[in-house]
Amino acid sequence: MSSSSSSSSSFSIGAVVASAVAGASLGALASTYLRPAKTVRKDLIPFLSSQGKAVVTSKANASDHDHAHVDYHFERISHEDARERSKAFAEFLTMRRSLRFYSNEDVPLDIIENCIEAAGTAPSGAHTQPWYFCVVKTAALKEQIRQAVEIEEEVNYQRRMNKVWVGECNILVSALPDAYIKPYLTEAPYIIVVMKRSHDIEPDGTRKEVYYPEQSCGIASGLLITALHNANLATLTSTPMGAESKIRTILGRPANEKVYLLMPVGYPAADGTVPYRTDAELRKPMKDIYQLY
Amino acid sequence: MSSSSSSSSSFSIGAVVASAVAGASLGALASTYLRPAKTVRKDLIPFLSSQGKAVVTSKANASDHDHAHVDYHFERISHEDARERSKAFAEFLTMRRSLRFYSNEDVPLDIIENCIEAAGTAPSGAHTQPWYFCVVKTAALKEQIRQAVEIEEEVNYQRRMNKVWVGECNILVSALPDAYIKPYLTEAPYIIVVMKRSHDIEPDGTRKEVYYPEQSCGIASGLLITALHNANLATLTSTPMGAESKIRTILGRPANEKVYLLMPVGYPAADGTVPYRTDAELRKPMKDIYQLY
Repeated sequence: MSSSSSSSSSFSIGAVVASAVAGASLGALASTYLRPAKTVRKDLIPFLSSQGKAVVTSKANASDHDHAHVDYHFERISHEDARERSKAFAEFLTMRRSLRFYSNEDVPLDIIENCIEAAGTAPSGAHTQPWYFCVVKTAALKEQIRQAVEIEEEVNYQRRMNKVWVGECNILVSALPDAYIKPYLTEAPYIIVVMKRSHDIEPDGTRKEVYYPEQSCGIASGLLITALHNANLATLTSTPMGAESKIRTILGRPANEKVYLLMPVGYPAADGTVPYRTDAELRKPMKDIYQLY
Repeated sequence: MSSSSSSSSSFSIGAVVASAVAGASLGALASTYLRPAKTVRKDLIPFLSSQGKAVVTSKANASDHDHAHVDYHFERISHEDARERSKAFAEFLTMRRSLRFYSNEDVPLDIIENCIEAAGTAPSGAHTQPWYFCVVKTAALKEQIRQAVEIEEEVNYQRRMNKVWVGECNILVSALPDAYIKPYLTEAPYIIVVMKRSHDIEPDGTRKEVYYPEQSCGIASGLLITALHNANLATLTSTPMGAESKIRTILGRPANEKVYLLMPVGYPAADGTVPYRTDAELRKPMKDIYQLY
């Protein structure tokens, strides 16, 4: 399957654009956003890297078809287009902020589900996909989670965390009078709880290893954050230290899973704020995070 | 600052589209891809969530301006637009595959740098940003890294990894005759080594804590993978078990950093292949990774 700009269009401007610009793929991408269609078709995706058909190539020497390699179809765009896309993407992500103040306005569930689907495309150690996304919408469950988090967070601030950490966190949350109070966990229409599997359990009860679950779930969470931002939603990656097993129990998840991240998701409150940062504080400059060798 | 479709355009079709579609933001996004401009302007970004000016709000009670909260400017798009964008993004990420076969064709460095910049926008524990991206282009260094990885990988396969794991990995790499040989580490024009800081060291030598570096680096790596895919580049998230400290030494990185991921980056080899997977094997279906509560 390959991207095409010759697909029929019910929206004339999109069609004009698609045929006018150089590069069918980019025209097709533009059409995605211009077109009022209800469903997104695969031929509207900017470029493809599908696995193609099951054509066993010379690099495959497995006797079992299921373990064979197949041709990798990869559609190239120009360096100039890649440059512009990459710059736009970086600028786009720069606009994201972690948010602690949410409106209780609802968000259609299917938008959340699309973001979960995007997160589920992450690579993982030995393709074990050791993640599970609990999307919590029920008010009573959000309240239970919030209570579990707040009880443990008070302990964290008073005993578990060292004084330096408490000081730093207070700065980050702008010296809120009670930093362990987490209204966002009930105000936001959703909490997404990212669960990490430490190992798998086969249907017959035997234990099966999972490789690099920490990295794998981190990457999937990165995809999720990007997908939510792309869907015009705000979130916060929080870590409910001490409350992990309580939350797992509230959600009825099995013992081989552990809470990895707790993410309120929704729209910002009308009076929502974010910590003020100078340009230097907002994010480290490239010279502090990157070197060419 | 807000997005605008009234910005001057030297490209008439883009301007027509921007004024014709409902929603300036989406029109502006389309223009990003249609417009042949050399630089991406902020008014071409689909929507903004900038921190605004340093207006201290009622939620801020810090006496120090630098720790105050400021209004959060968030530009809303319609649910319908968010739905279409979220679906397109999921479809787009579905096209990504981890790749082991690279062309040695060069990639302009600034495209790689844009992707690193995108990765650096990740959230992190207490905003400590505990990541560092080593972009390795020098052939001799790539060769040294490859040697370090291959020596240790042979040990991994023979001693460190259990037999089950070796079997599973062999399936994944399609029973390559010598799974510990990693040609992609020298064939690809770049290796990006993601370093994770376990703690910081202040200019005066004192140790400073870093919080949740594992999750933070995972999320940043997720952003990086997405950015590379968006820039039409292939990669592979590999973990050089046993070779971490050698690689750190090769790159001259400090002892408080550890290799988190090793990512070859480039274009697929002309005869590049990926493991064949049925639809069910390619990625877990939503029912296996998600539940609504």
